[in-house]
Amino acid sequence: MSSHSVEKGSLPDRFRDLWNQLAPIGRDENTGGYLRYTWTEPELRLRDWFRDQAAQRSMPVTEDGNGNLFAWWGDPADGNAVLAGSHFDSVPHGGAYDGPLGIVSALLAVDELRRAGVAPTRPVGIVAFAEEEGARFGVPCLGSRLLTGALAPDRAAALVDQSGVSLAEALGDRPAGADPTLLGRVGAFVELHVEQGRALVDLDSPVAVASAIWPHGRWRFDFTGEANHAGTTRMADRRDPMLTYAFTVLAANKEARLRDAHATIGRVRVEPNATNAVPARVTGWLDARAAEPDTLAALVEALGTKAAERAHRDGTQLSVTEESVTPLVGFDAGLAGRLRDLLDVPVLPTGAGHDAGVLSAHVPTAMLFVRNPTGVSHSPAESATDEDCAAGVAALARVLTELCR
Amino acid sequence: MSSHSVEKGSLPDRFRDLWNQLAPIGRDENTGGYLRYTWTEPELRLRDWFRDQAAQRSMPVTEDGNGNLFAWWGDPADGNAVLAGSHFDSVPHGGAYDGPLGIVSALLAVDELRRAGVAPTRPVGIVAFAEEEGARFGVPCLGSRLLTGALAPDRAAALVDQSGVSLAEALGDRPAGADPTLLGRVGAFVELHVEQGRALVDLDSPVAVASAIWPHGRWRFDFTGEANHAGTTRMADRRDPMLTYAFTVLAANKEARLRDAHATIGRVRVEPNATNAVPARVTGWLDARAAEPDTLAALVEALGTKAAERAHRDGTQLSVTEESVTPLVGFDAGLAGRLRDLLDVPVLPTGAGHDAGVLSAHVPTAMLFVRNPTGVSHSPAESATDEDCAAGVAALARVLTELCR
Repeated sequence: MSSHSVEKGSLPDRFRDLWNQLAPIGRDENTGGYLRYTWTEPELRLRDWFRDQAAQRSMPVTEDGNGNLFAWWGDPADGNAVLAGSHFDSVPHGGAYDGPLGIVSALLAVDELRRAGVAPTRPVGIVAFAEEEGARFGVPCLGSRLLTGALAPDRAAALVDQSGVSLAEALGDRPAGADPTLLGRVGAFVELHVEQGRALVDLDSPVAVASAIWPHGRWRFDFTGEANHAGTTRMADRRDPMLTYAFTVLAANKEARLRDAHATIGRVRVEPNATNAVPARVTGWLDARAAEPDTLAALVEALGTKAAERAHRDGTQLSVTEESVTPLVGFDAGLAGRLRDLLDVPVLPTGAGHDAGVLSAHVPTAMLFVRNPTGVSHSPAESATDEDCAAGVAALARVLTELCR
Repeated sequence: MSSHSVEKGSLPDRFRDLWNQLAPIGRDENTGGYLRYTWTEPELRLRDWFRDQAAQRSMPVTEDGNGNLFAWWGDPADGNAVLAGSHFDSVPHGGAYDGPLGIVSALLAVDELRRAGVAPTRPVGIVAFAEEEGARFGVPCLGSRLLTGALAPDRAAALVDQSGVSLAEALGDRPAGADPTLLGRVGAFVELHVEQGRALVDLDSPVAVASAIWPHGRWRFDFTGEANHAGTTRMADRRDPMLTYAFTVLAANKEARLRDAHATIGRVRVEPNATNAVPARVTGWLDARAAEPDTLAALVEALGTKAAERAHRDGTQLSVTEESVTPLVGFDAGLAGRLRDLLDVPVLPTGAGHDAGVLSAHVPTAMLFVRNPTGVSHSPAESATDEDCAAGVAALARVLTELCR
């Protein structure tokens, strides 16, 4: 195994050099976004790149049978390991940073520890989780859910992608499922992630520590009216569910703003969806998130009440179905406080799910966020400066230095 | 050819007997609606039924090579013929009356003339036009447009249905196109049609005469924003085109009500249409109709202005594209006045297109409407009582008696 020569140049330069190795992989030339679906050619290239980087750092790579990769500095069997990392896979035409930034930063943070001559007394690991976005098989945080037992391997094995390929076929085997031994050897997990909003722009800080993942959920709003002829039916005689839907879209926005919460209706289905027909039915999906479970519940209840009132006026019917609700994830408060004091950075909640949220039920877990000037995520417009990414690496290196001894 | 025996019973009974022969043809048992697409099995059965009914009445059937069928009492070559009829085809899961009522009523009206011993001095014809709804090949009033030359036969021949079958294949030949000789032999056309609204309910009249078909059109509203993460993007940082769309749906309703016009947004397309994504783009199609062209233009202009103002507030962009505009069709005023005086019934405009609208540019044309208690059309809820249908037959018989001598 070749010894890893410590790179020259400033940390932002070293970040840029490593980052540029990934930039072309899976990039769509037309949109500038990434198509890095799990176990497809671009994502397999990223895995090969990860193995090569680990080898350059003399870090043996292990796999857990669930598609997750681990590179180790020290023997994980010693236990109480400090783990850092994130995921390689993307949403369709997603940004470059969501996921890979956490892995690249962990590799560079190990370099920083070695440059500083830090001698860990606990094993240090870097993890690349599989299928965090759920863009191929439909289940977000698939790899971490399998590892922790939150998803049964038989159920996962049967998941199929849009081409009909099963997860078992893509993985080459039935997933191994929960691994309590491996999890028991991890003393702490830290995931660095690009911010998916603009809080750090406003706070004028390149880095933050996460406090929690907001409780969030999805609700289906079915608006039923009466199909009719768009040309001949008088406005007063209509029972048009598109009107009730439109009112509900605007009301969701208002109710979220009143509560400093988030509410989105970004998916709609219309029957018959014809230009010259008053629709028979319109279905909208509400994605809602808030800092507190009570706030989320109040938002959804208020919206349901207002939408039902409007349905009464429109002569339509409304049925609201809860499709999924994920409770509040509070990260380990002691660990978050320790990192805040160490780094002197803001502490922020997030509205997005992460592997760190799944791990936090089993392992003391923390997250670091790196500033995103556009605030945009899941889009090619997602961005971070080399200087901010370097600040993220430096922060992660300080955290690992603090935790690994 | 068997002689046609005059049926016994009241006119509503005779209507019901003939109507019941059609009721099961192409009816979907689940929705109660009709699937009578042109040149499919149910519609071909209706054509056979038409030929049989014509034969029972000793009326020879001619075809124009465009899919339209004509049954004649007297020799059309004599010219100045009085034509009545409508169409057999339906929208998906449409009602029973839209189209077939006009053909059945014309057959029964001929019976009434013969019962009364009327001896026409002009030829009397009954027409079944092809593909009035455009549900199979996408062009409404296809048969009448071909006959009048409003649609080129080469263009029509190449139209394909959803299974990839071309119109030429379905028809068995390239359509014949414009037939000025046949058109020149028609002195008047009268289409009886179920009302597609509730004006006659309010006016307490079973029958009305049409004054005009409202000018109408379709406009595509493209709302462009910025795709973003529904969970993490602050409400204030969004550029959500679904909000601008929703505002525009409600504004279209309001602008139409202010002008006694009709406006509908019943078709929408969203990208990426994902529950956890603020959309990048939302497209809505406006169907708008009004009594006067100026009213229609003012409605669309006011809506465009208000939607653009809202887009500015939402940080989105709006582009409005006129996809089609059909001008006002004024039916022959002399003929309409004559029928109103003859029948002593109200005169109404309609918002829907009809074969009569196409014919009216070439032939003095009138329409009769029959009361629809639900006001609903293009839906299984469309209805008419046997008594009102009989009143329609009686009115059409009086019109034919007046015109055929």
